Amino acid sequence: MGIIKLNNRVCVSTVAAVCGKKEYDGAFGELYDEHSDDDTFGAPTFEQAEEEMQRRCFVRALKKGGFSVTDIDAVFAGDLMNQCTASSYGLLDYGRQYFGLFGACSTMAEALLLSSLCVDGGYFSRCAAIVSSHNCTAERQFRMPVEYGGQRTPTAQWTVTGSGCALIDTGSSGMYIKEVLPGIPVDRGVNDASNMGAAMAPAAADTLKRYFSESGKSPHDFDVILTGDLGDEGHGLTTELLSYEGFAVKENYLDCGMLLYKPEQDVHSGGSGCGCSALGLAVYLYEKFRKKEIKNALFIGTGALMSPMSVAQGHSIPGIAHLIRFSSEV
Amino acid sequence: MGIIKLNNRVCVSTVAAVCGKKEYDGAFGELYDEHSDDDTFGAPTFEQAEEEMQRRCFVRALKKGGFSVTDIDAVFAGDLMNQCTASSYGLLDYGRQYFGLFGACSTMAEALLLSSLCVDGGYFSRCAAIVSSHNCTAERQFRMPVEYGGQRTPTAQWTVTGSGCALIDTGSSGMYIKEVLPGIPVDRGVNDASNMGAAMAPAAADTLKRYFSESGKSPHDFDVILTGDLGDEGHGLTTELLSYEGFAVKENYLDCGMLLYKPEQDVHSGGSGCGCSALGLAVYLYEKFRKKEIKNALFIGTGALMSPMSVAQGHSIPGIAHLIRFSSEV
Repeated sequence: MGIIKLNNRVCVSTVAAVCGKKEYDGAFGELYDEHSDDDTFGAPTFEQAEEEMQRRCFVRALKKGGFSVTDIDAVFAGDLMNQCTASSYGLLDYGRQYFGLFGACSTMAEALLLSSLCVDGGYFSRCAAIVSSHNCTAERQFRMPVEYGGQRTPTAQWTVTGSGCALIDTGSSGMYIKEVLPGIPVDRGVNDASNMGAAMAPAAADTLKRYFSESGKSPHDFDVILTGDLGDEGHGLTTELLSYEGFAVKENYLDCGMLLYKPEQDVHSGGSGCGCSALGLAVYLYEKFRKKEIKNALFIGTGALMSPMSVAQGHSIPGIAHLIRFSSEV
Repeated sequence: MGIIKLNNRVCVSTVAAVCGKKEYDGAFGELYDEHSDDDTFGAPTFEQAEEEMQRRCFVRALKKGGFSVTDIDAVFAGDLMNQCTASSYGLLDYGRQYFGLFGACSTMAEALLLSSLCVDGGYFSRCAAIVSSHNCTAERQFRMPVEYGGQRTPTAQWTVTGSGCALIDTGSSGMYIKEVLPGIPVDRGVNDASNMGAAMAPAAADTLKRYFSESGKSPHDFDVILTGDLGDEGHGLTTELLSYEGFAVKENYLDCGMLLYKPEQDVHSGGSGCGCSALGLAVYLYEKFRKKEIKNALFIGTGALMSPMSVAQGHSIPGIAHLIRFSSEV
């Protein structure tokens, strides 16, 4: 167990991001490759809209990278829908070797991690890591039918309608994967399904603590430390938990859930979902590397590993957090 | 894309299998490490029973191999429950690095495949590949409440109550992983959710055809070709599809779904579920290698990547099949 240093050059050669209306109206509007004004992407159901969004995102990534479908050896994909159907159906047309993942909202980091090991080991030349979430499929499945219009609590987060895709290969994009640290599920007894930030913060803090302790590095060694979807609530808790352990994260610690929307969009504690960290990776972190504004960053995908059934049966909510270290240097 | 040959010694060092009453009464009774006479494993709900089954299976595998929990670098796990909760909750207590997978009933093969690449690449010393399914959690989630007592069609399969665990490392058990071939999702338009064999057979045939074509080997080069859970129906269709392609599989082609139960147990087309191929791997294939009765085998985990929602919305059912080649020689 512990930090895995990659032996070879492994990079995020291209990213793409496709999103819904609210995300497009948010903080990064023009940076998205495509969006849908009514969140349906022309599909007759929310579930098929999410599949279509993932399909478009994959195609956008290929086009931006100048690749054809057959340049992709394997796809690592997942989403929040039961049995990960947005990924299996969304990517069905492309005839690629396929690994379905379930890491809840941490799935983008899990996909990046496994892709990078497989490229580093020479097993695949180029992998696609692709995930999605859709506010309406998530609301229908995890909380209540969208039509119901229930009240949301202050700690609640807004499931991002978005899909992000990263192509991982041995190219030279200027955003390299240097180290990975797989997450360990952590359950500190949080059982409020409207407070995912609190459920996931202990896992994020655990992974970061393990990373700093083992590497001997400290938070100020990084230009950016970016968690996936902890929101205001979870970001604050993670900061506090790390400070108890002697690691003071400061302004360089950001969370994708706090970045994607404008304050006036009223998403309560922030964005969440597989799409949240995937969009943050694409429109924020990759952009920062592309513009050479940062050199060294930690990306920590966070996920809450519960289901509506487990919550109904009184289980508390375990979190998990996978870490990737990106660098501008090979 | 294509067959990946492992560079180093990678073996299935230990397996464990824990099951329900019907499986214990089936063809391999005494070979299971543990079973529950009422399928509850002492838990208050079916879902928690499945978690407990996975927990016991992991502990059994550790004990049989003479390992402690800390000897396991990473766990690759999955199940059929929404959000894979049997795995996340079942393995929560052990504090291991965790990768959640969703490959439907193919998850054991997906876990073996990714574990073997990670051990071969030197990223982990020892991985656990562990999956489960439970007849009652699956019936409740995918078909109808168990209490309903609905009629089953002749092509229906019986979801196996069972968990299988394989520990993958660089040891010398006599069952080595030599090659892997990741599956490609295949959808041939089958939309009968009571005929999973037909939905998965095209994927199994596709993977086997790709394997034979690329390797230049033929079906009679193997002592056993073992698919995961196609049942009578899917086994027949796979045989037929392969014969169209010029590959004649004969008596050496078996399916875990046809092996686990006795004929008089009336499981219609056979067993199914993540647990089906995992138990078949443990009590049949591993045993054959252990007793030196076979030298060369193909194991093909098969999965149907649909959900109740996708079926309700009129989608057909895609299948996937990951292949592992085992050999008695290093």
